[in-house]
Amino acid sequence: MISIVVIGAGQVGTHFCNAIHASPSLLLKQFYNRSKVALTDDIKDVEFCSDLDLLKDADLYIIAVSDVAVEAISKALPFENRLVVHTSGSVAMRFLSKKNRRGVFYPLQTFSKNSDLNFSAVPICIETSCKKDRELLKSVAIALGSPYYTIQTEQRQALHLAAVFVNNFTNQLYRIAHELTDSEGLEFDILKPLIAETANKVQVLSPYMAQTGPAKRNDKKTILQQQKLLENTPKFQEIYKLLTKSIQKTHG
Amino acid sequence: MISIVVIGAGQVGTHFCNAIHASPSLLLKQFYNRSKVALTDDIKDVEFCSDLDLLKDADLYIIAVSDVAVEAISKALPFENRLVVHTSGSVAMRFLSKKNRRGVFYPLQTFSKNSDLNFSAVPICIETSCKKDRELLKSVAIALGSPYYTIQTEQRQALHLAAVFVNNFTNQLYRIAHELTDSEGLEFDILKPLIAETANKVQVLSPYMAQTGPAKRNDKKTILQQQKLLENTPKFQEIYKLLTKSIQKTHG
Repeated sequence: MISIVVIGAGQVGTHFCNAIHASPSLLLKQFYNRSKVALTDDIKDVEFCSDLDLLKDADLYIIAVSDVAVEAISKALPFENRLVVHTSGSVAMRFLSKKNRRGVFYPLQTFSKNSDLNFSAVPICIETSCKKDRELLKSVAIALGSPYYTIQTEQRQALHLAAVFVNNFTNQLYRIAHELTDSEGLEFDILKPLIAETANKVQVLSPYMAQTGPAKRNDKKTILQQQKLLENTPKFQEIYKLLTKSIQKTHG
Repeated sequence: MISIVVIGAGQVGTHFCNAIHASPSLLLKQFYNRSKVALTDDIKDVEFCSDLDLLKDADLYIIAVSDVAVEAISKALPFENRLVVHTSGSVAMRFLSKKNRRGVFYPLQTFSKNSDLNFSAVPICIETSCKKDRELLKSVAIALGSPYYTIQTEQRQALHLAAVFVNNFTNQLYRIAHELTDSEGLEFDILKPLIAETANKVQVLSPYMAQTGPAKRNDKKTILQQQKLLENTPKFQEIYKLLTKSIQKTHG
């Protein structure tokens, strides 16, 4: 049984708490947050603490706080030589205080409040300074049912950047499509099957092979016609032009 | 039983043939294509023809050819006053020859060869000049198991444009992410659960509500750090900057 303390009550911290608590080979020993946010009903029996001095002994401490707070909270921990990891995609491991053994346990996924996420769909990127700790983190990932990858800081930063493209930027394209349908009195719902199928397709085909549409087949007539439709929304037109050019460069 | 002739052997034509043939209330009377492309094994019993003069009488003719060929083939049809529809997102209905009753039957989906697509995930956008024909096209959509929407030309063009954003442009963001992972020796596979969850999220949340990430929370440090990672790929950096700005405008 691996005992774990989770520090932080945001999306990531809460999802980790739920998943750790649900795993038979992990023990959620304590849950810390400064603002005394309560846990969900399912795990009310877990000990809660809002004072770092009251943190108990555990095999692993998972810091799931905002990027800017990682360094300070790791310095403030009142113990030494234990395994402390953060969960950020962009913070280098060296920002964790040296007094403890350091690592990263980065879940490459988007979390929402009020939505249960199966951890088999949460790849964990693992980074540690010593090998023994790496094995422990692997065991935790396995116990959560997550695929895991041992990676280095530069790789994690590239992944986090790639995640911004496939998650935040993609979602913004959905948003633009929502505005386009709204402006014509159409339901956004009509686009949902296409959104789902676009994501499905690249589960089996490479994005290169999956590409279709006017930019790929260099259909100038349709491209010009669509640019014209965006004349009154120059911000969207600029995105249209840039991504069209990008597709043409890839497939040209 | 509604009898249908499909004209064209591309992705759309082939998928329509298979779905019509599989529906108990539709009859795939004939399948036309100029280049004598054979049908898939499942529907080899359907009559094939490569000469327009041999087209049989049917309740509906579906023209599923490339945009530029729609007008010419509709003019070349050797009959009058029958219901002829095209399947294009961007071609106006008036490009169909006036000698027949005209309509549009636009499937808002991305089709791939060799992949069976359930037509319940293929919304059909219907447009006709007379009401009776609209009812027939609705019946065909219902028989295929597809959701359908009665829309006008301008709405269809807005939908086609929105489809380019959520399909082609999104897929290009996947492609960029693929290049980013490749350049760090990482598998693209690691991003697939995130891609799937991003598309899942907007099935129930609006894209506005689903947004997360550095641009939305105006995390300048991460944004600058990520822009720096893209210094050697200015084309990707330009896309990063523009979409970050777009998110900030939406959520600012």
